[in-house]
Amino acid sequence: MSDTSAAGGIVTAALLVIGDEILSGRTKDRNIGHIADHLTAIGIQLKEVRIVPDEEGEIVGAVNALRHRYDYVFTTGGIGPTHDDITADSVAKAFGVSIDVDERALAPMRAYFQRRGVELTPARMRMARIPFGAELVENSVSIAPGFMLGNVIVMAGIPSIMQVMLDAATKFLKTGKKMLATSLDLHRPEGEIADMFAALQKSYPDVPMGSYPFQRDGKPGTQLVLRSTDAGRLAEAENELKVQLSARGWL
Amino acid sequence: MSDTSAAGGIVTAALLVIGDEILSGRTKDRNIGHIADHLTAIGIQLKEVRIVPDEEGEIVGAVNALRHRYDYVFTTGGIGPTHDDITADSVAKAFGVSIDVDERALAPMRAYFQRRGVELTPARMRMARIPFGAELVENSVSIAPGFMLGNVIVMAGIPSIMQVMLDAATKFLKTGKKMLATSLDLHRPEGEIADMFAALQKSYPDVPMGSYPFQRDGKPGTQLVLRSTDAGRLAEAENELKVQLSARGWL
Repeated sequence: MSDTSAAGGIVTAALLVIGDEILSGRTKDRNIGHIADHLTAIGIQLKEVRIVPDEEGEIVGAVNALRHRYDYVFTTGGIGPTHDDITADSVAKAFGVSIDVDERALAPMRAYFQRRGVELTPARMRMARIPFGAELVENSVSIAPGFMLGNVIVMAGIPSIMQVMLDAATKFLKTGKKMLATSLDLHRPEGEIADMFAALQKSYPDVPMGSYPFQRDGKPGTQLVLRSTDAGRLAEAENELKVQLSARGWL
Repeated sequence: MSDTSAAGGIVTAALLVIGDEILSGRTKDRNIGHIADHLTAIGIQLKEVRIVPDEEGEIVGAVNALRHRYDYVFTTGGIGPTHDDITADSVAKAFGVSIDVDERALAPMRAYFQRRGVELTPARMRMARIPFGAELVENSVSIAPGFMLGNVIVMAGIPSIMQVMLDAATKFLKTGKKMLATSLDLHRPEGEIADMFAALQKSYPDVPMGSYPFQRDGKPGTQLVLRSTDAGRLAEAENELKVQLSARGWL
């Protein structure tokens, strides 16, 4: 990916999860965490997630709000064969482009269904509807593809299919500096380390610091996380943290 | 809750999840599904979820975008004792009200910490900062409360604490007609039932219908879900669905 890295820059993304079933609680999302991990690993910063229902106005509004604000927008859900699968049409509408059955998508689906003796119904042909000007994103699990239109990457909602699409889409993406992180578990409650930690954050405003309480063997502890795209600054801040902790006998 | 039910109406909500650690993938969200289930069960429709980082501008912007659009906005995360916990101050800013340590919150915290021999540091006192005009939301796990300001309910991010706060907040909420759902598992792939199902949806535009593919014993199936706040209409649509399925020999 080195030749597609943004020159020294930060690359940002948003994720749009589409589906009534997530909002009603019937289905529990299993994609957000996977996509967050993947993007962090390849050097893209996930800055926002939205979950919206299967309603055209909501999808169009969210796609347009997000695509102008972030380098990439990933969507999951709503690209199956049934009437409630309206993501592809909504994304075409957001961009103001036409959408139709695309022979590049249909040909492999036709072959795939034929081999399995499955009829290519009008409903199944819906899955070959691709907005004009989009690149296909390969689906090695069940063939009906996702696509990338402008900076919007449209993927399936079923986790196993979403994951192969995300892998396939990755080659299209420019990536930025990786966000590096270092963490340290302290056997002290959050409330005790907070003043020291706030002062440290003030000295290193470019190194975002977070603290996360945990319970272990019934005792409260705190995980401190320092993050930066600059390995040198991260090491400096981590070193200073250890100095501060040692001075208090907390290490 | 009957006396606080919206008279025959629909009550809507959004959820705002606040935290860098969710967006980076370091922590996997475990609150969205629980809150979705709870709201559905009490007759509040969750219409949108957003996840934003621990940045004041992002939190203020999202709170203000959502609170004018939905009956309620729930937030999770960012109300602990450390410098990256900025939710309470951000919500106060979104409403344009002042925020300070609130004796109603501080008194029980003082007693709780004293009993446990824990010092009430300035950092811990941060957790008693409550925007002017807010109601407290009880935290029976670790005492430091959440709050409700206008139509915004601010809760902790730690699931066990969020859950008791959500239960405590529920008594403040007006609730609407419960969304009823009925589902039916078919041993047919989604692509085969799609045309029939789309026609049925057209006949019952007031009964949202969704289909969700699954694999069982290596064979594709589809779960059909019908939803309505009107039990009579739901039963009518379900009956018609069964007639259609029987006519095709699919039941």
